[in-house]
Amino acid sequence: MDKAALAKAAAEIMWRDDNASKWLGMRVEEVRPGYARISMTVTPNMVNGHNLCHGGLIFTLADSTFAFACNSHNQRAVAAGAAIEFLAPALLGDELTAEGIEQALKGRTGVYDMKVTNQKNELIAVFRGKSATIKGLLVEDA
Amino acid sequence: MDKAALAKAAAEIMWRDDNASKWLGMRVEEVRPGYARISMTVTPNMVNGHNLCHGGLIFTLADSTFAFACNSHNQRAVAAGAAIEFLAPALLGDELTAEGIEQALKGRTGVYDMKVTNQKNELIAVFRGKSATIKGLLVEDA
Amino acid sequence: MDKAALAKAAAEIMWRDDNASKWLGMRVEEVRPGYARISMTVTPNMVNGHNLCHGGLIFTLADSTFAFACNSHNQRAVAAGAAIEFLAPALLGDELTAEGIEQALKGRTGVYDMKVTNQKNELIAVFRGKSATIKGLLVEDA
Amino acid sequence: MDKAALAKAAAEIMWRDDNASKWLGMRVEEVRPGYARISMTVTPNMVNGHNLCHGGLIFTLADSTFAFACNSHNQRAVAAGAAIEFLAPALLGDELTAEGIEQALKGRTGVYDMKVTNQKNELIAVFRGKSATIKGLLVEDA
Repeated sequence: MDKAALAKAAAEIMWRDDNASKWLGMRVEEVRPGYARISMTVTPNMVNGHNLCHGGLIFTLADSTFAFACNSHNQRAVAAGAAIEFLAPALLGDELTAEGIEQALKGRTGVYDMKVTNQKNELIAVFRGKSATIKGLLVEDA
Repeated sequence: MDKAALAKAAAEIMWRDDNASKWLGMRVEEVRPGYARISMTVTPNMVNGHNLCHGGLIFTLADSTFAFACNSHNQRAVAAGAAIEFLAPALLGDELTAEGIEQALKGRTGVYDMKVTNQKNELIAVFRGKSATIKGLLVEDA
Repeated sequence: MDKAALAKAAAEIMWRDDNASKWLGMRVEEVRPGYARISMTVTPNMVNGHNLCHGGLIFTLADSTFAFACNSHNQRAVAAGAAIEFLAPALLGDELTAEGIEQALKGRTGVYDMKVTNQKNELIAVFRGKSATIKGLLVEDA
Repeated sequence: MDKAALAKAAAEIMWRDDNASKWLGMRVEEVRPGYARISMTVTPNMVNGHNLCHGGLIFTLADSTFAFACNSHNQRAVAAGAAIEFLAPALLGDELTAEGIEQALKGRTGVYDMKVTNQKNELIAVFRGKSATIKGLLVEDA
């Protein structure tokens, strides 16, 4: 399998397993080596009485995108930590998209940057995740 | 109203409004000035096929706790950003508790530290949030 | 003055004033709107007995670059906070370069990403800074 | 050697080696297991024309304190990353003190919180560092 096909196959294995991202209605748009893009609609369960989306769920969208990006080389990796900056509110009905790009991968440590935008391409949040690779592959016979 | 009563009354107004925290089954255990404690059970919706809780939902628990702590002075405040370090996995059925304490409040900026522990008092994650106060009170006639 | 000339003029005013960056031997390589690049040689004062550069001084190089980038629109801005990930050690004699790029500027808040590399173009650290604009211009008659 | 004596002995070995902290005039006030406190005077080299201390040097003080705290168990550890929030300016002549406390130590990862205050006990900055232990002891025959 080439690297692009392997990234897709690894993503399929992750997705099958990922109850929380499905429960939140996320849609995996694209995964390639060092990259992932996932979208999510802001539903009534996710907002407060002012129709503002809970910041934790914006983080969760970015965190799922981070997970798909940092596992895209087929080497299992977990989040060691992450930081988010909230730049604009997300509202009921918004279509959010998180795009994640690998910035660095040195030894067992990776750094990935996610940007969360809405359907008007306005920047809602920026998220930086630090990953640590662990033992094991996703596609085991790759 | 004294400060402790005001913190409780502000928390009640926030809770009434907070669909996401209710949807995730959170329980507000205690709120006082500069402090909040909220718990959440890890349900099947929150885990992957290895029964590990999605990091975004651990973040969300800490983020709700942060919101209650940084609004506990009755002055409305929002999250400007946050960082989390994941120290141990949370598992299906775990009873997580996030405890948040104000570290600094200077001008419009606050810094709050949350610790997330499980039912065995093991440390699952540490979270630091930066808040910005905005115009408006929660209890308006306080 | 056009925006590029204004960024240069603002940088000159900042540089004149910046004892610490001069003391550490920094050299401003380029400043344009939303961008700065500064270099620094790792001297014996900056290292420990194993010839490893103190992480705080790597941070300081990135922080100066951040300051020049976030003031490049001629609107005065200060650092609200920053996070750094150390990816590889810097050694005695290394020529470090920090390159900073604006990621977001919304209202008074800016997010800037700096990468610190050595003379072999190896990535030493990534740094994300959050700025807050304050009153006042650098070039006052612009 | 008991743990307190070992922490002191480890600190002495680190200090002997630490050109940068000496160059910046730092003074190690106290080191015990999971704890360090270091002070530094803000000198003319450290300030700009408005007598404000460079944020990078405030970071460096906290970073040195972090290093002494995370090496206080005699197991060598390095900084993986750190985040700082700047809360108030430090001025020429200020006597800054950074106090660092271990928050978590799980496997190879540690989390340490530093607070930087001035001579009036005003909070200047908060700093959170993530450490990774590496092979080797400081006091080798402990």
